[in-house]
Amino acid sequence: MNAPPIPARLERTRDLIMPVMAAASATLGPEMRRAAEFHWGWRDEHGRAIEARSGKALRPALVLLSAEAVGAPAARALRGAAAVEIVHDFTLIHDDVMDEDTERRGRPTVWSQFGVGTAICAGDALMLLAQQVLLGDESPHRHLALLELCDATQAVIAGQALDIAYEGRVDIGVDDYLDMASKKTGALLGCSAALGAILGGAETDVVKSLRGFGSSMGLAFQAVEDWLGIWGDPDRVGKPAASDLRQRKASLPIVIGMSTPGAAGEAIRRWMTSNEPADAAGIEAALKSLEATDAERLTINRARRELAGALVHLDAADIADEIRKELSELATFVVERSL
Amino acid sequence: MNAPPIPARLERTRDLIMPVMAAASATLGPEMRRAAEFHWGWRDEHGRAIEARSGKALRPALVLLSAEAVGAPAARALRGAAAVEIVHDFTLIHDDVMDEDTERRGRPTVWSQFGVGTAICAGDALMLLAQQVLLGDESPHRHLALLELCDATQAVIAGQALDIAYEGRVDIGVDDYLDMASKKTGALLGCSAALGAILGGAETDVVKSLRGFGSSMGLAFQAVEDWLGIWGDPDRVGKPAASDLRQRKASLPIVIGMSTPGAAGEAIRRWMTSNEPADAAGIEAALKSLEATDAERLTINRARRELAGALVHLDAADIADEIRKELSELATFVVERSL
Repeated sequence: MNAPPIPARLERTRDLIMPVMAAASATLGPEMRRAAEFHWGWRDEHGRAIEARSGKALRPALVLLSAEAVGAPAARALRGAAAVEIVHDFTLIHDDVMDEDTERRGRPTVWSQFGVGTAICAGDALMLLAQQVLLGDESPHRHLALLELCDATQAVIAGQALDIAYEGRVDIGVDDYLDMASKKTGALLGCSAALGAILGGAETDVVKSLRGFGSSMGLAFQAVEDWLGIWGDPDRVGKPAASDLRQRKASLPIVIGMSTPGAAGEAIRRWMTSNEPADAAGIEAALKSLEATDAERLTINRARRELAGALVHLDAADIADEIRKELSELATFVVERSL
Repeated sequence: MNAPPIPARLERTRDLIMPVMAAASATLGPEMRRAAEFHWGWRDEHGRAIEARSGKALRPALVLLSAEAVGAPAARALRGAAAVEIVHDFTLIHDDVMDEDTERRGRPTVWSQFGVGTAICAGDALMLLAQQVLLGDESPHRHLALLELCDATQAVIAGQALDIAYEGRVDIGVDDYLDMASKKTGALLGCSAALGAILGGAETDVVKSLRGFGSSMGLAFQAVEDWLGIWGDPDRVGKPAASDLRQRKASLPIVIGMSTPGAAGEAIRRWMTSNEPADAAGIEAALKSLEATDAERLTINRARRELAGALVHLDAADIADEIRKELSELATFVVERSL
């Protein structure tokens, strides 16, 4: 299937939040600012301005749509939109330290460029900066918005800690995986979809439906990412083929594979706990075993089932119809773009 | 000089904030809670309750006194008191990762017990938990208090990043050091001394004087810590003799030594940039060079000068006289206890 065109909303959002992020970044200490703006692709390693690469800005786009969904102008949610993006950046910078990943989006990660200490400080500063951006909002609903952002950020941290706790274990089931992914990925997307409505002064039940929509969309998104981590086209994904098998990362298809009885499951469990280096022959054999299980079909099914669940939440939300349509298209895009 | 008795206030404060910290900790994910309660000395590495060691609780004691200073009951500042202590714990846990320190207060550090990943997550979770504790305060001045806590926490992070940036440099002057220490240590003590007054609804100028008091006290405190890091009695400090020379840590006396012209200064600069292992003979020679400069006297002078500055701020504050006396005694205790 050809990838559908990227919704204009995603392209536009980064331009909208950029001034908020730039003003916030200017309040940071020089070491943290250099690291953050390098991470964002605004500056090279010497601090010189470079042409910014525009990422997807999915989370802030959800925040702005969420405000419009309850009849508030998107501008009222700009600080919320910048805050969720900054939280996301904090998690990427710290995750890269913990996972010892040296490259992200084709550039060195913050720790590999500036050292582990500076990367830890930069992540700390960004997590707090997100709070400060939202604290500076004039909305009467600011306090509720802060509670929402804090809860989601704690969930993301808890999800990352679970992910670490799962390392090297072959007894992780699909439910364990979903618990982890709903925290690590679902929570911040759920918060994003709720935050605009909160800042727009929406009722609790609308907020709850939108949060449910974002959270299920997050799980669907993660399932697709995990599918790409095994079967994605290396040229398009920017990672080697079967990357997660190579890295022995317990993604959804691999967890499904490890939970499969019989020889194929056993081969995957052996691969995941092996201390042998991941050579091409080993990866190919592990991939064959994984494909002998039902992991690929079940992973795609999971993505589509969570997407369907997201749309049920969306239908239940008492929001403007044109925004419902746009949110629905966005969620569908995020899930179907690569399948 | 004999160490003066520990003020009763410090002993009492930990009991007061303990229930707030315990309730907050119970909201964390299990990995982070285990790490935090291990760090606090409430639990052993298996999560079993042990007899809690009571630390100094200097920062929360300042918060409670700061509320009483402006005529508010200490109870009104309990969440603020717990929040500054939790911020302090976040910084300790992350600093230990960055400095690769394996021991703190005679026990393993969080990263050396639970791994780097879990320690980073635990620090992240605690920084955010401090915000959440304060967000849960019912005070009409909660928003101002949050701004104060965020500013101070950003300053602490910026100070730690500077500390890292200074590593291996011999051109750090006393002003650079004071800039770093006023952020890394002064800011959170300044915030502590301000926060109770803010939560108690005090006027801006009272808050400012109290913040100045705490901040100068923080610099004085750090100068004493740095003196102890060279000349402290190993049995009382719990570190080897001349510990900061051994670790080649650019503390205040060492920065003073490195800035001293002549042979002694040159010997210290050579020691600090040497790649040789720190053997007993080398440490003793470096200590001799350091003592040939005026570093010890100037370090003690700096501590006493900052203490005097703190007391000037305190005198300027329009607060209850009996609390002024208690704050003054506390600051004097903190500085003079070991000199």
